Amino acid sequence: MSSKIPVLEIFGPTIQGEGMVAGQKTMFVRTGGCDYRCAWCDSAFTWDGSQKATPMTADDIMAKLEQTGGGRFSHVTISGGNPALHVGIAELIERFQEKGIASAVETQGSFWQDWLLNVDDVTISPKPPSSEMTTDWSRLDTFMMRLSARRDGNHNLKIVIFDEEDLVYAKQVHGRYPDVPLYLQVGNDDLDNQDPARLRDHLLEKYEWLVDRVMADPELNRVRVLPQIHALLWGNKQGV
Amino acid sequence: MSSKIPVLEIFGPTIQGEGMVAGQKTMFVRTGGCDYRCAWCDSAFTWDGSQKATPMTADDIMAKLEQTGGGRFSHVTISGGNPALHVGIAELIERFQEKGIASAVETQGSFWQDWLLNVDDVTISPKPPSSEMTTDWSRLDTFMMRLSARRDGNHNLKIVIFDEEDLVYAKQVHGRYPDVPLYLQVGNDDLDNQDPARLRDHLLEKYEWLVDRVMADPELNRVRVLPQIHALLWGNKQGV
Repeated sequence: MSSKIPVLEIFGPTIQGEGMVAGQKTMFVRTGGCDYRCAWCDSAFTWDGSQKATPMTADDIMAKLEQTGGGRFSHVTISGGNPALHVGIAELIERFQEKGIASAVETQGSFWQDWLLNVDDVTISPKPPSSEMTTDWSRLDTFMMRLSARRDGNHNLKIVIFDEEDLVYAKQVHGRYPDVPLYLQVGNDDLDNQDPARLRDHLLEKYEWLVDRVMADPELNRVRVLPQIHALLWGNKQGV
Repeated sequence: MSSKIPVLEIFGPTIQGEGMVAGQKTMFVRTGGCDYRCAWCDSAFTWDGSQKATPMTADDIMAKLEQTGGGRFSHVTISGGNPALHVGIAELIERFQEKGIASAVETQGSFWQDWLLNVDDVTISPKPPSSEMTTDWSRLDTFMMRLSARRDGNHNLKIVIFDEEDLVYAKQVHGRYPDVPLYLQVGNDDLDNQDPARLRDHLLEKYEWLVDRVMADPELNRVRVLPQIHALLWGNKQGV
């Protein structure tokens, strides 16, 4: 018996544009469904009903990855939506391990799955006030504790920053989990902009603001600040 | 007795714009002197005589870092020139360890120093054909072997790519040290451009070329491809 996974898109190889494996050559599997509704979500089509997901088994997904990526990948990123909603991903991670494919997952830390213990790079991305979501700290504590107990693999926190209030939230998260590497990422507040060159200038201006704020703050010394590289290259285009 | 270090600049905190700790909040110490003369060196002032270095002890450097960075740093990057020319850096790394400051060093791998064993993140950046330098493979082999023997810390290879010939070289390096994470970085071939917005468009075009080439190549699946983030933000300005 296998539990199907709702899939919105499978594409690549392309670069991972964000976080701890930024620049990594990777395939993407984007799952549908999310327990959050972030105000600024850049993948709202995974949960707002505007695009239909395809229910796929781990073998279906593996076949599609191989058909799309050929021999040109050895790393797969599972993103969403919130991939941790889907128990069926356990089987997909097993396939990756059999084939020597490295894996990365991003999730907000609101739902736990045991298969997270077998993912190479786990990014936990709690959502700051600008998202209009509320963090359930006791759930996040449990999630972080379970992840810290594993022997192999890396994990990190990533927080998208739009404003000063988000920075206060980031410091709260950093203080709560001081040993977990923290990445701050500038938010894209211009999702309707279809001119990549103008969007690029705007995003780099925002990024510079965030860099300046972090540089000035003694509480944020061990932090890494990154732009979304794919947005600088390709703007708001889906599937790259 | 302490061995002085020739220093060109000390600045920060700013972000590390390149490689394995890209985005990290860090101070920079740039040492003078290099055994290489890369055709496209973006820090030629460290070796071409155009700027004078100041001989400093480890304590001098530590004092200057604290004066410049205040309490706003816990990470220092030592760059050059080739920092591995200077035996005196051993003492500086000791100061960092006493103070709980993390360290990163970048060197081409042509000279070994035992203090490299105590650096948290070592980037080895062999120079491809476009640099007009010739790699001494037996020296590089010895360097890589010594670094691999240490218990703590990370190390990675970074190669700056300007053209197809450089990519062939990168694959040769990747094949020789397959277990060391490899970063490819697009080269800045427009060092005289004083218009950050135009330079940015040009560098992102070059970066997209490099991304496309790596995505198409099955021999480069485990590679990470990055732009120079600081050049996107601040162009060719020194000291940021």
